[in-house]
Amino acid sequence: MNKANIKNIGVFTSGGDSPGMNAAIRAVVRTGLYYDLNVTGILRGYDGMISGEFKPMERKSVANIIQRGGTVLKTARSDEFRTKEGRVKAYEQIKKNGIDAIVAIGGDGTFTGANIFHEEFNIPVIGLPGTIDNDLMGTDFTIGYDTAINTVIDAVDKIRDTAESHDRLFIVEVMGRDSGLIALRSGIGSGAEAILIPETKTDVSALIHRLGISRKDKSSKIIIVAEGDDAGGAFEIAKVVKDKFPGIDTRVSILGHIQRGGPPSCMDRVLASRLGVAAVESLMEGRTCEMIGIVNQKIHFTPFSSAIKHNKDVNSELLKIVDILSL
Amino acid sequence: MNKANIKNIGVFTSGGDSPGMNAAIRAVVRTGLYYDLNVTGILRGYDGMISGEFKPMERKSVANIIQRGGTVLKTARSDEFRTKEGRVKAYEQIKKNGIDAIVAIGGDGTFTGANIFHEEFNIPVIGLPGTIDNDLMGTDFTIGYDTAINTVIDAVDKIRDTAESHDRLFIVEVMGRDSGLIALRSGIGSGAEAILIPETKTDVSALIHRLGISRKDKSSKIIIVAEGDDAGGAFEIAKVVKDKFPGIDTRVSILGHIQRGGPPSCMDRVLASRLGVAAVESLMEGRTCEMIGIVNQKIHFTPFSSAIKHNKDVNSELLKIVDILSL
Amino acid sequence: MNKANIKNIGVFTSGGDSPGMNAAIRAVVRTGLYYDLNVTGILRGYDGMISGEFKPMERKSVANIIQRGGTVLKTARSDEFRTKEGRVKAYEQIKKNGIDAIVAIGGDGTFTGANIFHEEFNIPVIGLPGTIDNDLMGTDFTIGYDTAINTVIDAVDKIRDTAESHDRLFIVEVMGRDSGLIALRSGIGSGAEAILIPETKTDVSALIHRLGISRKDKSSKIIIVAEGDDAGGAFEIAKVVKDKFPGIDTRVSILGHIQRGGPPSCMDRVLASRLGVAAVESLMEGRTCEMIGIVNQKIHFTPFSSAIKHNKDVNSELLKIVDILSL
Amino acid sequence: MNKANIKNIGVFTSGGDSPGMNAAIRAVVRTGLYYDLNVTGILRGYDGMISGEFKPMERKSVANIIQRGGTVLKTARSDEFRTKEGRVKAYEQIKKNGIDAIVAIGGDGTFTGANIFHEEFNIPVIGLPGTIDNDLMGTDFTIGYDTAINTVIDAVDKIRDTAESHDRLFIVEVMGRDSGLIALRSGIGSGAEAILIPETKTDVSALIHRLGISRKDKSSKIIIVAEGDDAGGAFEIAKVVKDKFPGIDTRVSILGHIQRGGPPSCMDRVLASRLGVAAVESLMEGRTCEMIGIVNQKIHFTPFSSAIKHNKDVNSELLKIVDILSL
Repeated sequence: MNKANIKNIGVFTSGGDSPGMNAAIRAVVRTGLYYDLNVTGILRGYDGMISGEFKPMERKSVANIIQRGGTVLKTARSDEFRTKEGRVKAYEQIKKNGIDAIVAIGGDGTFTGANIFHEEFNIPVIGLPGTIDNDLMGTDFTIGYDTAINTVIDAVDKIRDTAESHDRLFIVEVMGRDSGLIALRSGIGSGAEAILIPETKTDVSALIHRLGISRKDKSSKIIIVAEGDDAGGAFEIAKVVKDKFPGIDTRVSILGHIQRGGPPSCMDRVLASRLGVAAVESLMEGRTCEMIGIVNQKIHFTPFSSAIKHNKDVNSELLKIVDILSL
Repeated sequence: MNKANIKNIGVFTSGGDSPGMNAAIRAVVRTGLYYDLNVTGILRGYDGMISGEFKPMERKSVANIIQRGGTVLKTARSDEFRTKEGRVKAYEQIKKNGIDAIVAIGGDGTFTGANIFHEEFNIPVIGLPGTIDNDLMGTDFTIGYDTAINTVIDAVDKIRDTAESHDRLFIVEVMGRDSGLIALRSGIGSGAEAILIPETKTDVSALIHRLGISRKDKSSKIIIVAEGDDAGGAFEIAKVVKDKFPGIDTRVSILGHIQRGGPPSCMDRVLASRLGVAAVESLMEGRTCEMIGIVNQKIHFTPFSSAIKHNKDVNSELLKIVDILSL
Repeated sequence: MNKANIKNIGVFTSGGDSPGMNAAIRAVVRTGLYYDLNVTGILRGYDGMISGEFKPMERKSVANIIQRGGTVLKTARSDEFRTKEGRVKAYEQIKKNGIDAIVAIGGDGTFTGANIFHEEFNIPVIGLPGTIDNDLMGTDFTIGYDTAINTVIDAVDKIRDTAESHDRLFIVEVMGRDSGLIALRSGIGSGAEAILIPETKTDVSALIHRLGISRKDKSSKIIIVAEGDDAGGAFEIAKVVKDKFPGIDTRVSILGHIQRGGPPSCMDRVLASRLGVAAVESLMEGRTCEMIGIVNQKIHFTPFSSAIKHNKDVNSELLKIVDILSL
Repeated sequence: MNKANIKNIGVFTSGGDSPGMNAAIRAVVRTGLYYDLNVTGILRGYDGMISGEFKPMERKSVANIIQRGGTVLKTARSDEFRTKEGRVKAYEQIKKNGIDAIVAIGGDGTFTGANIFHEEFNIPVIGLPGTIDNDLMGTDFTIGYDTAINTVIDAVDKIRDTAESHDRLFIVEVMGRDSGLIALRSGIGSGAEAILIPETKTDVSALIHRLGISRKDKSSKIIIVAEGDDAGGAFEIAKVVKDKFPGIDTRVSILGHIQRGGPPSCMDRVLASRLGVAAVESLMEGRTCEMIGIVNQKIHFTPFSSAIKHNKDVNSELLKIVDILSL
């Protein structure tokens, strides 16, 4: 299988961490060892590549980590790697350590860097989509998304307990950068009365009108707002609601970084495991500059350029059911 | 939209319960009300249909249930419905209560009954796949499967803590009737050293050989056994392992009914919500005798006969990665 | 036992909700029924008492609620009850509904109101400590405290995953009003590097000095801040830290209302159950104007005036171990 | 403070593992380092002591373990240590490694061994109560008990979902060896209809009579059985119930080893942290052959002989409320 004659695979995580990255690292390491390759862990993403923070990975290095959030290889955003000088240093370290292929786990910034690095130094790189935001083309779900939406609904279930007890309106802000995908599924899953996402125009007046109607039936309400929504974050929405509905007892909750941690869900662990195996096998087959995802239950390859450049569409059926179920 | 001129939809759950059934009931009720239909809850599946346990469903009947395991409509397996007399009684109750279309949430037994009922009395029925076993054709995942595999890995994570502390081998039995799909994904997700499923021949000698090899590296081991495995359940496997590896400190854990309960995962809530909306809309469009699933992220219809008659294949890629990652 | 010849007990929850209130309501209702009393639920605390929102409680009214956060009787803070007119209306409703004794579940504001109400109208009232803040004299723990600190450590465990991955400092703000007890135990339990509470003077310079020292050993740090801390909340602390340690990558997380919800812990359910039983029995014995707590594993009575007027001391041993373990 | 002139503390875990052992190890290590002592980890309890599995503990050795179940020092039950020869070997290893005081974390078997070891070789030993069973005199709660009962109620909450949906009776067996304390509190906390413990005579006929009465009100029922109950385990009880109540749909669930693992609760982490600090300080003060516990919120010392020889009484008030609340 090893057409590309790979001997030593480097693996790192970069950008924001997401639950399941450890499961992906474990899969890359064990698959490498399964095929009698060496595997080298690169710490702190591109920064560690530049400064030479490398360590050989054994089977034991990844024992008992599949269930842990975060990344044992640590992660960072690197300014230095954006400079040519930084990348030259990184390549020298790669060469010095005998690494002849790389698995990069991260998001669009990670792949952009990997793409340039390959163009400049011709080192094969395969990318795995590790981000809670699910904002990458070429995979149905990114590693960490499923865990993040489960964390959100667990938090909103708790918030609903107190919202119900006090007949309150809660505006809950969730992560996702400029994507509404975390908000969309976690909003449906938590039975939210409204979901505000950047992909659709947020009309606060219409929202208030709708809330006014549904108010007859139920006493407490949850609005889920994506942090990147066009109408602003939870505090901005709350301000508008308070101005127009002064009688409603309104509270804001910013869920924040709990969404990035915790033991990964089963689906995230399985996804990460499958992608980690596929990453090593694709490098051995001579592939490069592609992100591996799962589309329709099958391994799927997408050139870095395509994974990066497009935003995912929001499923219009999901938008419709929000309207039907929340009234 | 209401081509079929539906006025009153009956909804029930039948067979083994699964987390997300409540989310499906909620979606059916709210979608019915959204389209100005009446919705009638039928308690205890076909048994309640026969004995006339009906109640009108309001918006409030399904408030605050999306997050709850089990089914507020209760469920049962009905012997009486297997008789013609039973079905006649059921139909009389249906007529008496003015129900002109039915949403049946359950598994293959549920759909078999619904199919016969439609043939005999020409009442339109749409089925939703509610079972933790994921053993139905026509949907990537059944309602409850995702929650069940998350419950399993949470339990196995706990078991691994004590397995690691004592260097023990645990044989953990999971549900799934004659399907290995719960075992397969939860086994990968929990980092099990071996996964025994009915779809593949279990060779205990080979297994023991493999465990012997991997024993050098790691001290504790987890074997996940599907309850329907051809080599028997956890106690049978444990007996064989103990006989051949008397030195290994072996324990058995039968996870049992915790796998059926608990708050549904986000994906199960979203799946159930989507299917509940689609069920009502399809009845209004005049469809009948079909199970609705999600295939490749899209709503998918399968005639009851096809949903029932075939077993799902096991993804061969998943089987392969078990071998690679567990060694 | 029924010396006081009680026939109909009213029960309500008031003030901020806390997990375990439902378990307490269940215990009051079932104990009343066990002793052949009537039990009347009063909705929305003193507000519902004034407006006459009463409902008879049956065994079924409290079935399957022991595990739920929030309060099925809802809760509110009442301005009207602070007026004599309000209390007169409330008493008329109490008389009209034949209630001859009351169980009030809440915090110090609840008991203050109950004390005045008893003085004015001579209706016996027993209080149960329902607040996550644990800030009441006369009980080792209040109903909800144990759940809240478990919720905090679960959240901080998740935050630590991402803190570790990025070598970040997180300032995490927890609830507690003017009490540091949530911060203290959850801070020890989450292995925080520093815990800032209102009961001790917060010296940010000393804190920074200490963090500087410990920085050599570990890369990520968690500071837990009680919302009532003298140095301000998390955002204020973060500002100071950023000013003095510009190199540290700092993030803020306000845990917020998730701390009020969720299924109560076992200890909270047991505590609430014991107190609910004792409340009914004490009213039957003719007691009034006392809060019931558990001190040293035993039922303990405290006059409302004493429960209200003193703040709990902070255990000095706990403060000491923070210093030892966090360095 | 260091009156005893301790220089190197050995720490180990022994017997069954329990959640919070890692928090105790962390506290012992950090407190030792805080007082400028060396701390040596002894692996696998007395077995590792005999075979010389020692490792120096640094601050980093215990970083990020406070939240993990199990024990990083591993644990075992040692037959060899019961022999004089075994203990002589153990002492030689202790001497060779310069260990002059020991912290032993475990249960009664652990302390019995420690007591003999001290008598024979005069090495100071302090014990910490690490067992989920809560069966040791001299402490209100043992390390791991609170987590175990939370794990039980979480499992029973799930089981209740399916019990309710099917109107089933579940017999759930929990751990505790010959103690009913896990069953008692988790039974109250899960709202069980009956709790069967070894400390009280189990009268199955009376139980069935009681279940018959309560059957009118509620449809599903949960019986919690301690594994050491005088009437046998869950399967035995189920057999009797099935014989006498053939109409009841009965299921058995043996919760098993999930009760030993998982992230420790906040109270267990705080308890373990307090005890770990106190253990090191007591050794420095010259104490030996005592178990440290918390009684009435304060550190409490109990000679090994007293901690071992008596069984804890069952709180009669708790027994009474089971009767009141479950009817």
